[in-house]
Amino acid sequence: MNPSEQFSPLRWEGEVLHLIDQRLLPGEELWIECRTDEDVFQAIRTMIVRGAPAIGCAAAYGVVLAGRRLAAAGADRDGFARALGEASDHLAESRPTAVNLFWALDQMRAVATAALAGGADPAAVTAALAQRAVAIHADDIAMCRRIGKHGAALIPDGATVLTHCNAGALATGGYGTALGVIRAAREAGKSIRVIADETRPYLQGARLTAWELLREGFDVTVIPDGAAAALLARGEIQCCVVGADRIAANGDVANKIGTYGAALAANAADVPFYVAVPVSTIDLATASGADIPIEERDGHEVLTLGDHTIAPKGARARYPAFDITPAALVSAIVTDTGVVRAPYQAGLAASVDTDA
Amino acid sequence: MNPSEQFSPLRWEGEVLHLIDQRLLPGEELWIECRTDEDVFQAIRTMIVRGAPAIGCAAAYGVVLAGRRLAAAGADRDGFARALGEASDHLAESRPTAVNLFWALDQMRAVATAALAGGADPAAVTAALAQRAVAIHADDIAMCRRIGKHGAALIPDGATVLTHCNAGALATGGYGTALGVIRAAREAGKSIRVIADETRPYLQGARLTAWELLREGFDVTVIPDGAAAALLARGEIQCCVVGADRIAANGDVANKIGTYGAALAANAADVPFYVAVPVSTIDLATASGADIPIEERDGHEVLTLGDHTIAPKGARARYPAFDITPAALVSAIVTDTGVVRAPYQAGLAASVDTDA
Repeated sequence: MNPSEQFSPLRWEGEVLHLIDQRLLPGEELWIECRTDEDVFQAIRTMIVRGAPAIGCAAAYGVVLAGRRLAAAGADRDGFARALGEASDHLAESRPTAVNLFWALDQMRAVATAALAGGADPAAVTAALAQRAVAIHADDIAMCRRIGKHGAALIPDGATVLTHCNAGALATGGYGTALGVIRAAREAGKSIRVIADETRPYLQGARLTAWELLREGFDVTVIPDGAAAALLARGEIQCCVVGADRIAANGDVANKIGTYGAALAANAADVPFYVAVPVSTIDLATASGADIPIEERDGHEVLTLGDHTIAPKGARARYPAFDITPAALVSAIVTDTGVVRAPYQAGLAASVDTDA
Repeated sequence: MNPSEQFSPLRWEGEVLHLIDQRLLPGEELWIECRTDEDVFQAIRTMIVRGAPAIGCAAAYGVVLAGRRLAAAGADRDGFARALGEASDHLAESRPTAVNLFWALDQMRAVATAALAGGADPAAVTAALAQRAVAIHADDIAMCRRIGKHGAALIPDGATVLTHCNAGALATGGYGTALGVIRAAREAGKSIRVIADETRPYLQGARLTAWELLREGFDVTVIPDGAAAALLARGEIQCCVVGADRIAANGDVANKIGTYGAALAANAADVPFYVAVPVSTIDLATASGADIPIEERDGHEVLTLGDHTIAPKGARARYPAFDITPAALVSAIVTDTGVVRAPYQAGLAASVDTDA
């Protein structure tokens, strides 16, 4: 029942949502079974599933599981509607800043409302919800493939491509955004080598990007984040592709901490720096990067690695989760609707319009 | 018998050289006893002691321990001279690229040759060697203090200072080069806060810089290497001070991987970027950074942390140990003979002359 043969961090089997536990990768490949909406809530909250698009898909399936639970309990239509709303509200609290999560839940609420208004009973509403969840998941993969197709043309044959963090299949319904561009370049017959910043402190690059690319036979090399600038300066990297958490109306990019440093080094070496995102990441209501609040995460994540403490007792640490890459350092923004280049203000507005 | 009350990674007690095991820091503070020259050889080879100046001091004490061993064995003057030469040659093989190691051993050889030529017996030669080893150690600390004094004037009162890797007491006879500048600024009455790049993969910043500064009551915060650029861009850092492994005649700086990226980010933020070194680090015979060979270390160090494997099986990694920061990104080079600013070619040549 998966939307495609593409590897996905989510496997839907009608009564069970299987999620690969991304906390254990790459050491262990464990699939977690979510049989209830509460299971999905916990999976999102504890970061078994991560990446805004992947979280959105998981939450949608969570609403289906809620519907199934309520229908099985014999709720009447009113009770079902009320309890389903409560279950959706609860799922929304699993990760309070994930925009895709709210978007997916809104979609699911609208489906339920329409079905109930049409006279459907709880079982029929649940069937409609399941259909929409599968569609959200399939659409996410299709959107990644469109991003990939647009971006692939930018990647030279024979290129070594630097990426940061994990904007891959694991972060989406499947295929990925930045890694979607890399996959699409290979599918277009190009020979591609990948260099993955390890991406401290959470090591998404070393743990997740390397894992998902290796299993597809990519040539991937992990480097310390601090080594990217030197390799760029030495001409060993031909282009960079990263994802983004949010893009402001002027083209400033908020992405995982370390992105800005990589962009500075790419520009110093005259190497193109591309950002690959769905247009939903473009926030026209945010004028510039200065208006994007930067989440400071617990410094504890910097001071430890697994069970291993790396700094002396009493040491403090800081972990700003994201940084801002000014639009001037971005060679192009690749979206599912096309490729936008500077000046970004007009181009980004048009790309969002195309989508609407 | 230590040359000063300054913390030193070496403690000499006449018959024993105590070395703090830097591999175990900060988790465990274990002092290793070296009672023979072979103990010192192993300590250098296995990185119990690290940092070129600290290695030079350790090797000097190693020659003393060799002299003591040979004198106790009742060697005659010829046999003593020959065996001492062999012991020195062996110590030179403990770390083949450490310039300070060769320099210290040459000094010790010259002392032995002069004492023997003056008719000294093995016990008297050994006493002369001990005197010189203690002087080499004390001179190293005094040199660091001169670097500190010159550099302290550059650090604004109230500054937050970024440093990379460990160019501290642990890497030298004591006091440190980059951290010597920070210590001297505080001794001059300035209020200083320190941000330490963790410095992947070996984590010298998180493990060693944080440890040695915390024990002296400094306000020190560890960050992932990738976070430095963002904090610089946000105006949270007022200057940067790092050490160097080698400086070319034109001012290009070879230092621990990640230094170049920090320098790029400092320049983009218009924050001064200082390099603190003894003049012995300035290599006038090397025209520019392009002529400095960059050691590629085993990628295994990137893929593991302690016993913890962070990347998937089959993943490759690269670990270029150093990078080149172009002179144009360096605001000043602080040495034991003064502060050199661009144009570096003439200033560096003059600073080396001052030393001679």
